This record gives sequence, C-alpha cells and structure tokens, in this order.
Amino acid sequence: MSRPGRVLIAGTGLIGTSVALALRAKGVDVWLSDADEATAKLAADLGAGVVVPDLRDAKAIADVAVLAVPPAVVGEMLGYAQECAVAEWYTDVASVKAQPVAQARRLGCDLETYVPSHPLAGRERHGPAAAQADLFLGRTWALCPLPETSAAAVAAVTSLAVACGAVPVTTDPETHDRWVALVSHAPHLVAVAMAARLAPSSVPADALGLAGQGLRDVTRIAAGDSGLWTQILTANAGPVAEVVAAVAEDLAAAARELARESASTDVMSLLDRGQAGVARIPGKHGGQPRNFRLVQVVIADRPGELARLFNAAGAAGVNIEDIRLEHSPGLPVGVAELSVHPGQAGTLLDAMEAGGWPVRR
Amino acid sequence: MSRPGRVLIAGTGLIGTSVALALRAKGVDVWLSDADEATAKLAADLGAGVVVPDLRDAKAIADVAVLAVPPAVVGEMLGYAQECAVAEWYTDVASVKAQPVAQARRLGCDLETYVPSHPLAGRERHGPAAAQADLFLGRTWALCPLPETSAAAVAAVTSLAVACGAVPVTTDPETHDRWVALVSHAPHLVAVAMAARLAPSSVPADALGLAGQGLRDVTRIAAGDSGLWTQILTANAGPVAEVVAAVAEDLAAAARELARESASTDVMSLLDRGQAGVARIPGKHGGQPRNFRLVQVVIADRPGELARLFNAAGAAGVNIEDIRLEHSPGLPVGVAELSVHPGQAGTLLDAMEAGGWPVRR
Repeated sequence: MSRPGRVLIAGTGLIGTSVALALRAKGVDVWLSDADEATAKLAADLGAGVVVPDLRDAKAIADVAVLAVPPAVVGEMLGYAQECAVAEWYTDVASVKAQPVAQARRLGCDLETYVPSHPLAGRERHGPAAAQADLFLGRTWALCPLPETSAAAVAAVTSLAVACGAVPVTTDPETHDRWVALVSHAPHLVAVAMAARLAPSSVPADALGLAGQGLRDVTRIAAGDSGLWTQILTANAGPVAEVVAAVAEDLAAAARELARESASTDVMSLLDRGQAGVARIPGKHGGQPRNFRLVQVVIADRPGELARLFNAAGAAGVNIEDIRLEHSPGLPVGVAELSVHPGQAGTLLDAMEAGGWPVRR
Repeated sequence: MSRPGRVLIAGTGLIGTSVALALRAKGVDVWLSDADEATAKLAADLGAGVVVPDLRDAKAIADVAVLAVPPAVVGEMLGYAQECAVAEWYTDVASVKAQPVAQARRLGCDLETYVPSHPLAGRERHGPAAAQADLFLGRTWALCPLPETSAAAVAAVTSLAVACGAVPVTTDPETHDRWVALVSHAPHLVAVAMAARLAPSSVPADALGLAGQGLRDVTRIAAGDSGLWTQILTANAGPVAEVVAAVAEDLAAAARELARESASTDVMSLLDRGQAGVARIPGKHGGQPRNFRLVQVVIADRPGELARLFNAAGAAGVNIEDIRLEHSPGLPVGVAELSVHPGQAGTLLDAMEAGGWPVRR
C-alpha cells in the first residue's frame, strides 16, 4: 500500500486544507482547487500546495482527488472531476455518506474509482486558516467503499488516510450514517434539549448557581453553532430521528413513572442500561476503558500551581493519564482529579502529600 | 453571626462526618451519634469528634444539631432529637427538601428551631472513611427556612455553613427541589437515556470507536450508582418528572420533524434555545462564564510531558485557568486544550512553540 505521490484537493476549507498540509508534510505533491479563488490562494500561501486555476486543464494531474466540499454537492463535484479526468481515484470527506452516494449514483458517476470516506475530526472554526497538519493524527477515518468500488481505489484512499496519521475503519455508507447518528448527532441534540431547559428567564440565576460539573459536562456541546448543526442533522435526518425518538421515549416513560410516584422499576432499569452503555465507550488510545485510579488533590488557583503539581508527580515517577479540574464556585481553590494506573496511586498520593497538597484518600 | 461552639452530628456517613471534620478544623466542639455504633466510632477515630452513645443522655449538649440521615427519616430524627432536647437549633443536609419538611410537619416537630438545608457537595463514595474536611469548600449550601423558622435559627445554621467553607444561598423547600431537579437530577436521567442507546449488543464496537469527546462528556455521569440514583430521583419525583417530560417532548418533536425531512425550523429553534441555555451556566468561581481563549497544544503521552508544559507556561508568566486533555484513540499523542485569559493567549502560544510543542493558532 504505497502512499499516493500526487493528490488534488478540491475544496480548500478546514478539512481539505488540513489534508493538504498533512500530505505536504509527508512530501506528497498537492494541487489545490476551490470555487472561491481567494480561498485556494490562502491555502497555497499556508504551504498547502499549488493552485490549479481550472480543473479542465488538470487532466491526470493526481493519483487521488479529495473532494472536500459540502455533502449536498459531493455527487456533482465527483461527476465534474471525473469528466475532467483529474485523477485515477476519488474520495470525499463529508460527515454523512448515504446522501452523497445517492447523488453520485443518480448522476451516473463512475463508482469503480470512488471511495466515499469520512475522517472523524473537526474543529469549531472554519476555512483554510483554521487548518492544521495534525488534525487527523490518531483519529478514525471511515472508508465506505461501494459494491462497485475497485480494490485498487480502496488501497489508494486507505494509504492517503494513513499518510494523514489517521486510523482507517471500513464500513458501508448506511452503517456509517447510523453510527455517527448514534455517537455524534443524537448526543448533540440530547445535550441541546437539556440545555434548552436552562434558557427561560423563569429560571433564576440562583438555580443555575447550584450547577455542578455534571450539568456542565452534559450540556457542553450544546454551545455549538446552530446553523451548522441544523445542516448536519438534516443531512442525516433518518438515522438521527431514530435514535432521538428512542431517547425521547425512554425519557417520557421515566417521567410518567416518576409523576405517578409508583414503584420505579422502569427508571431503575433505564439507569442500569445507561450504566452499561457508558461502560462500552472506548477509553484513551481507542482501547477498552481502562481502570484508572482517581486521585483528588486540592489546589489553589494561582500561577504555577499545576506546574508544581506535575513536577512533583514526575519526580515521583508517576505518569498522569488524564486530568480534570473541578472548580469551586466562589473560592479560588479547586480539586484536580488525576487519573493514574492503580499501581501508581499510592506513590502519587504520597508525593502530593509530601508537596503540601491536601489529598483525598 | 458567631460560629456555633458546640455541634452534634446525628448520622456519621460521608456528609455528616465531613461536616464534623470541617468544624473540628475550626476548633468547634463536635459530638457524634449514629444508629450504627461502629460507624460513629470510625468517625471519632478519624478525628471527627466524640461519640455520644445515647441522645437521651445528651440534653442541651449542642448549639446546633446536624441531622445527616437519609431524606426519608429526617422528620422522624428531628422529632426524636427535639424530644431529647439535644440542641438549641436543628438542620438537616438531605438533597431533597419538600419530603423531609412534610414529614416534620406531619410529626408535629418544632419548626421554629429547624432550618432545612442542603450542602451541594458529594462524592461517589460513601461512609465516614470517604469524608473530608474540605468537601464543602466554595460549594453552595442551600438554606430553606420555613415560615415558622426563627431568625436566630437561620443565623446559627448560616454560620455553621460558612464555618464549613460553603457559600449559603437562601430559598424555600419547593423552589430548592425544582432547582436541583433542573440542574442535577434531570440532567442525570438525560445522560442515562443517551448512554442507554449504546448498551444493546446490536451496537458494534466499531460504532463506538467513532465516539469523540462530545459523547464522552454527555454520558459521563450515567456511570453513577443505579440504586442511589433511583432513590434520589424518586425522592424528588414530581419536579424531576416535569423537567424530563419537557426534554422528552422537545426531543420527540425534533425526531418527528427530522423523520419527515421537512424544513427544520423546530430543530433550528431548539438548537438556538440550547445554545442560550448553556451560556447561562456560571463559570469558574461562580461568576459569569468567562470568555477564556482556548489554546491547543499537541502533546506526547509520556511521563513528565504535562509538567514540562506547565513549567513553560509558568516561566512565561501565564496562568492556565482550565485544562482538558483530548486523547487520540490509537496513537500515543493527544491535544491539551488550555484555557487562558485572552490577553495571555499570544504569550502562551509563543512559549509553547519555543518549547517545541506543535500549537494550533
């Protein structure tokens, strides 16, 4: 599986330019094209490659063409790029797959050379200026070859994903869309629906003052851009609707049972299922959730405090796997929750105590 | 508002023992009592105070008695403690308030000396061994005086909360229960309902491999103990049912609209309301959400890496307000998201770059 030597990026937004930068860093020749000339020029200025002014003059310019355009125009773009014969193989990077594939079929595109794909990475920001060469480092890159797709096309796009530092996973478009509905789109809507309860002016600030880390975590992603998320959710409407309807039904049933103040068997069973579900989410490094030991240390909110703490941990030979800061509303102190291997917890606690930090054993 | 000099803790579990330890640290004389003698003894061994074997022999032993018993028996315990006349004033620390207050009324307790209260703090663990003197540091402590409650009783319990390091907020029992339903109990059930979708074996591990930080955050609290949460949710059933039913309705409406693939005006408006809601949650130190600038730094997963990073930040005079580690599944690298004051972002980026870390500008 050799790395593609020449790649054309059609669409130099955040994702397209990031792919370009990642490939440039590996010495790949990258060509850039965008409906907006200034955007392509900016990407080129960032070192992402060389602008191709007109795809009609770019016959066979690349091994792989990456169509980094919005989902709604992927099929159209594929047809045009194939008409211009710019590359041997084609892929797109849209976050939904069934819609672009259906469009490509309808337009009679050549599906043998086309591998629908989706790198699981993104940022809140847009445009080439927000691009980064390491955007895909360690991220999953879903490949969704069609029955018509050739093995050579799959191999070429797989090696492109690997060159970007991503981890390729193969599935089909419909399955892909169900998966992202479950792990990304539906959770967004669920966070939003909870956060929406906090919006009315009838909810006083004092009530929100009782909020702990739990509410903050559940609702954090609801801060995302409404316009962008409306697009994402409607592009994957069917699969998202299915998951969200099921969540709504479980919540409505729980609410009915609680309102009746009857024996709470449904609520208990829902709590059990939730616990089982969250336990299945893979932990760091994509492995099974690891059984880290949580060490809690009370810290002051002053410059250098976390540095002192990490120094003490490092000097004791302890590697901190994860950290979460829990702030104390109203006071300049907080609790740092440090995740470490169970065997190192004792050493860390001793080191923290020796360093003068109140620890919670 | 002088600090109580003598306090009786009736119920030496996690919360009761933590109150005791906090007061002991301030030089308060603390007496301990528990239905289970071994539990009271363990709390005493931890330095929480002196055991009172029988409340009937403890007449006027304390200024304030803290009833740290389960919600369902608060009223009963209040009646007994008042019968024994152990203290001048009484409070409880149950996480719901309407239920214990109703019980106290029904049992004909003296409400003039009673201030229902609820310190907003807790841990996943139970029992006196998990107690800590700083559990309430900077946390909100809700006081819910009744119409009958005397001003002297409120003053005494307020000073007790302050002595524990907490920030007192005054409301009434029904409002309190609606508030915690909104910011704590309903969000728990919402996280659970989303997490429950991940449980069925029909959801393959590959699907969960696409999970990002968003899903992890939304579902994190669903890992909590099912038995404990069933108790909490049923004790505050009415207010929780109201919030959860409203969330379910919004989600069901969104699902219906998406399933119809019609113009997504409801979804868009829900997204807008969610964004407005999450913006209202107070940030660090209980103030308005502060507009921190997020600085992203790519770090390697090896001992001492975070220490090096914080040292570099400290040397540059930058105070890091918050940190979130985003791990790259499959690779030993991650992205540290550092929150800093907007004015310090440039300095931090320069320092990180000078230290050899890839930054994202």
